[in-house]
This record gives sequence, structure tokens and C-alpha cells, in this order.
Amino acid sequence: MMMRFDGRFGFPGGFVDTRDMSLESGLCRELLEELGPAISTVDITEKDYRSSQVREHPQKCVTHFYTKELKLDDLERVELESGLAKDHGLEVMGLVRVPLYTLRDGVGGLPAFLCNNFIGNSKSQLLYALRTLRLLREDQIQEAIRASQNIQY
Amino acid sequence: MMMRFDGRFGFPGGFVDTRDMSLESGLCRELLEELGPAISTVDITEKDYRSSQVREHPQKCVTHFYTKELKLDDLERVELESGLAKDHGLEVMGLVRVPLYTLRDGVGGLPAFLCNNFIGNSKSQLLYALRTLRLLREDQIQEAIRASQNIQY
Repeated sequence: MMMRFDGRFGFPGGFVDTRDMSLESGLCRELLEELGPAISTVDITEKDYRSSQVREHPQKCVTHFYTKELKLDDLERVELESGLAKDHGLEVMGLVRVPLYTLRDGVGGLPAFLCNNFIGNSKSQLLYALRTLRLLREDQIQEAIRASQNIQY
Repeated sequence: MMMRFDGRFGFPGGFVDTRDMSLESGLCRELLEELGPAISTVDITEKDYRSSQVREHPQKCVTHFYTKELKLDDLERVELESGLAKDHGLEVMGLVRVPLYTLRDGVGGLPAFLCNNFIGNSKSQLLYALRTLRLLREDQIQEAIRASQNIQY
């Protein structure tokens, strides 16, 4: 995920005017601006579409969520070139990997990560992706959510 | 700051056995492992020392805090090479810049960033650095803290 200009975690993306281009073309443009040149070799298609959500406030908006599996080599290339992205230091303050494990103390890792500050529905999008892409089992996800809710500040 | 393996934000650093080396040498070793090769040209000395804090639990531990001002060029080089760090993808999940502004809505930027999950005393170290290095005025810091405490989840 990325740390955004507003101090919250979110996924790369942005507004697309579908009178001008397809959602997927708009997404590729946003990814290029926010993740940098290495993502340009990754093709996003309708097959990568996951879900949509309608938001009524502060203004009506439909968010469309896509996921893409990258080989570790490709991910590392994106990370290495992310500092060259047009929006680096502007919209994007940095990229981070999401820890998909829980440490022996029961809170470090994914539970603690879920206690960070997320924009809009991006935290539920993250959990939805972990579930539907079977990156974690349902009981692991539920346990991480439960542990995150018990963390004291 | 960096997103740590445990899902929390913190500063680069680590344990140093002062029977083996000075605090500054140990810090430089940790920075190299966590930030990557570009930091090796940055020399940390006793002049960069800021503060210390004693922690009694879970085990007695003294944290020493150092800050270093980098030119933007040097910071960008560190960011670009951070993916080459030995600990990248292990102890370090990514580097992020801290937004030092507040957006017009009164919460986006530093206030929202302060609502993320921080390890140990790293959030107070961040605020201490902003104050003592005069990166923000005292009233700006207080306002950001106040705004962050009013953010609803």
C-alpha cells in the first residue's frame, strides 16, 4: 500500500472520467504517476477487477477495486523505481509492504498494521483482497481483526 | 520514518553493545542495513545526538535518539536505493516521508499521520524532533496533536 499525502494509507488510484477512457486505462495512468515507470510493463485488464462501492458523502463517488499479482522480481523493480514516480513526494509519501503474518506476541504484524490510519474503504478492500485471493485463511483474517481491536493505545 | 516488520511506524535503529563499538558506529551499521547503501556517505556523530529515554518494560532498555539533516538530493538517493537494503522486506517494509503540513480540512496531513500506529516512544521522538529542529512552530505542533485527538474512527 502507499502512505498518501494526507497521512493515511491507501491503494494507488484516482479519478477517471469514463467519457475519456476506460476504467482500466485510467487506472494504468494513475499507477504510472504514483508507482513509477516499472509498473508500465504490468497490464491491468477487466480480469483484474474485484469489486465496487458507492459512497454518498462528502460527494457521490463510486470506487472500483482491482488487484494484480506480481512476481517478487517485478514487485522489487516497482519498489526500486517508485522514487522516480511523478507523484513521489507529492501525492505519494512512500510505498510499504503489508505484513501478512502475526508475530508470536499475537499483535505484531497484520493486527498492528490494521491499527494504522486508512483512507475511505481501503482497509476493508485490503481484507477483501486477502480473503478472495486466498492470501490468508478466513480464520487467520478474523483472528487478526480481533487482535487489532484489542490493541491498547 | 519506516514501516516496520511488526506493522508499526518507527525510526531506523537497533540494539548496540557499547562494549563492542560506539553508539554512533552501531547506529551507522543499523542505518546501512535498514536504509541501504546510499546512507553510507552520511556520517553520524555525537553532534547528531538528541535525547535518551529509559524504558523499564518489557525489559530495561535505554533508547538514544539521533537526527540528521539531509539535502533533498541525498534523501532522494536514500529513497531510491532503500529497496537494496539488507533488511528490506524483512525488518523494513518501506520508507515514508512524514507530511509536515495540515490540509484545509484541518485533519489531513500531520494530524492524520499521527493517528497511525507507532512503536514505543517513536511518535514522541518525532514530535520532539519537529520541535527542537524548528521544523514546525510550537503552536502548529500543538494544533496538529489536538486535531489528531479529535479524529473519529
